[in-house]
Amino acid sequence: MSTTHEQVLALDAADPLAGFRERFVIGTGPGDPVAYLDGNSLGRLPKATAERLRHVVEQQWGSRLIRGWTETWVPLPEQVGDLVGQTVLGAAPGQVVVADSTTVNIAKVLHAAAGLRSDRQVLVAARADFPTDRYLVEAVARQRGMSVRWVEASAGTAADAPADPPVDTALAAVLDRDVAAVLLSHVDYRTARIADMPGLTGRIQDVGALAVWDLSHSAGSVPVALDAHGVDLAVGCTYKYLNGGPGAPAFLYVADRHHAELEQPLPGWFGAADVFSMAADYVPAPGIRRMLSGTPSVLGLFAVEEGVRLVAEAGMDAIRRKGIALTRLLIGLVDEQLAAHGVEVASPRDPDQRGAHVVLRHHQARRLNDELTESGVIGDFRNPDLWRLGLSPLTTSYAEVWHAVQAARDWFERDHEHAREVAS
Amino acid sequence: MSTTHEQVLALDAADPLAGFRERFVIGTGPGDPVAYLDGNSLGRLPKATAERLRHVVEQQWGSRLIRGWTETWVPLPEQVGDLVGQTVLGAAPGQVVVADSTTVNIAKVLHAAAGLRSDRQVLVAARADFPTDRYLVEAVARQRGMSVRWVEASAGTAADAPADPPVDTALAAVLDRDVAAVLLSHVDYRTARIADMPGLTGRIQDVGALAVWDLSHSAGSVPVALDAHGVDLAVGCTYKYLNGGPGAPAFLYVADRHHAELEQPLPGWFGAADVFSMAADYVPAPGIRRMLSGTPSVLGLFAVEEGVRLVAEAGMDAIRRKGIALTRLLIGLVDEQLAAHGVEVASPRDPDQRGAHVVLRHHQARRLNDELTESGVIGDFRNPDLWRLGLSPLTTSYAEVWHAVQAARDWFERDHEHAREVAS
Repeated sequence: MSTTHEQVLALDAADPLAGFRERFVIGTGPGDPVAYLDGNSLGRLPKATAERLRHVVEQQWGSRLIRGWTETWVPLPEQVGDLVGQTVLGAAPGQVVVADSTTVNIAKVLHAAAGLRSDRQVLVAARADFPTDRYLVEAVARQRGMSVRWVEASAGTAADAPADPPVDTALAAVLDRDVAAVLLSHVDYRTARIADMPGLTGRIQDVGALAVWDLSHSAGSVPVALDAHGVDLAVGCTYKYLNGGPGAPAFLYVADRHHAELEQPLPGWFGAADVFSMAADYVPAPGIRRMLSGTPSVLGLFAVEEGVRLVAEAGMDAIRRKGIALTRLLIGLVDEQLAAHGVEVASPRDPDQRGAHVVLRHHQARRLNDELTESGVIGDFRNPDLWRLGLSPLTTSYAEVWHAVQAARDWFERDHEHAREVAS
Repeated sequence: MSTTHEQVLALDAADPLAGFRERFVIGTGPGDPVAYLDGNSLGRLPKATAERLRHVVEQQWGSRLIRGWTETWVPLPEQVGDLVGQTVLGAAPGQVVVADSTTVNIAKVLHAAAGLRSDRQVLVAARADFPTDRYLVEAVARQRGMSVRWVEASAGTAADAPADPPVDTALAAVLDRDVAAVLLSHVDYRTARIADMPGLTGRIQDVGALAVWDLSHSAGSVPVALDAHGVDLAVGCTYKYLNGGPGAPAFLYVADRHHAELEQPLPGWFGAADVFSMAADYVPAPGIRRMLSGTPSVLGLFAVEEGVRLVAEAGMDAIRRKGIALTRLLIGLVDEQLAAHGVEVASPRDPDQRGAHVVLRHHQARRLNDELTESGVIGDFRNPDLWRLGLSPLTTSYAEVWHAVQAARDWFERDHEHAREVAS
């Protein structure tokens, strides 16, 4: 029996996280989204963030001026880092900073990992990973005279070449004692497949290599336990499920045990032991602070703090439960209403294997996404034929999921109509 | 004859830039600065910026959400870069981007310069330069198997070891055809001495090396003519005289002629030819855009744009004229009122050699600065005995300069009183 609109509305009525939606700006004006399913590209604006940024700009920058640094801002990268660490990453304090872009932070952790295994010559990454991750593994390897080996793995879904083996088999094929570090993404940016973090970390460490995780698509949507799983280094972005805003600074984690030997490839005054000493030689700050480089974005840091506070209040367990329920509803509705139009679910159907987005495959995905976006139903297109829908547990309602599927169904029916007219 | 308070007030009354002060937030409440002479560390808040940021946060992020990227934000780093280039740097369009921190950008231009002269083994920097510049020259040299030579120059003032030669002599001593690039600061962060950009650039290029300039203390206070002087690469920060706010993104310039061969050491999706193609291999964007790495700070970019618009409106010539007049007034008042207390002017007395800040030397400089800051007269202390006063032409009044000198004189008189009491 098909899912009804009433059933969907009942899900919202019973949602324990429903109240969080009101804590975000969710406009209903003519330019506002009707269904926003791209919170995994840019999360919505928390009302508290708008308020906080006004305060920081007008009261702190405007009135405290340079005094803001010593009064409030200097410790922010670690302070917000600890909040992200404890709320989202399963990391004890003192191991996370927030600053710079994800790109810059990936470069930092790759250099740092290579430095910690300086007797080894190989960096490993996944062929299907997000472009930036791949670009940087190649660049860092080139800069350090290392070579790259690629994990040629299937993401475990119909979205991949069927000949590709699962990631653990593919990883085993390239791992040996020449490998300094392996960079993997926790949740695949296209398929949403969750990698086995503890299992893969263990395999990597079995050959003495370091496990470096990109958490961009899991942080704030899927529980992460970096300390418990013995991860070595990690990075991720804050503008998706952590709602830090466009271009918000990224986080960077290094396990305590590596701090003493940690090399900082982009040393700047903010990571020096005494920022204001203007010392003759670079003396890195003790602990994770040494991974800072230049002056961090104060506005970005406050925005991340506000976003993560909401995640902390909701709790990652409740967020995960709703993420599973939202993606399950979406997949069910696609099967019922869009499969007949040739739409295929390219994300894992097992909820334990799936993050908080769902990718659908259709040869018209680009046009579908463009035209639906114009009508306020906002998803994301990914090459070559993927319609990616992000379901952000704090802000996405079950009704939005319903609406998006109806809009897509209507689009296909109109399109079919149109095709028939053209043919006749 | 001594300068009088009336004469100083008359300077404000006749100041053609006086109207700009009202375009900034200049509070007069109990927590607000009485005299803010640290705009060379963090510039004041333009009223338009507070307004713009509210709009961007609430209307663009809040309502347009992910659509903001394609509608408005993607071209911002180049758009704001061109504005900075044309207004402040003397750079034709297409050669400047704004993104990342100054630290990250220095690393980028040093790697890029070394890559453009990959047959050479030496990087050169000045021993007395800002710590970050020195740290990065050492780090990049280490990463690329190069060596560092130091320019052991005097900054040309009483602030330096008298034995040190002038910068051109010191530079000549280390320049030869092994040198890939030389990093120099245009305005010294302590003494405010202006380096001879065209002359030094020419000497560097005479041996086939590249001239890389750090403009952090000149951008927005001293005219810069990168194209006319044939500079190769440059960077600088935007939160000083450009009033971009705490941690605002930095600018990066590469002359057109180097674009085709330009290596990007931190390749990320934002500098790729097609940001959204998720291509298999890194194909750099044509032109200066390839120097972008990760997702830039949108809030920071808008803040820089607003700050630079005010500079554009005022014009660099008028800004330079007022910068000279402000520093001249300050030096005159110090001679009249503070010299007797042992305060020494450690910046060049020739206005053509001096940027828009003045550094004063006194063995009590740290305590003086701390205690005056508490009373709302805000300057900056620099190791070991320097009181640095930044005079930001768009926002600093002549009356503020007067007030700061009076406050220092009162402090010395109280201190002297106190010393006498203790002695008796």
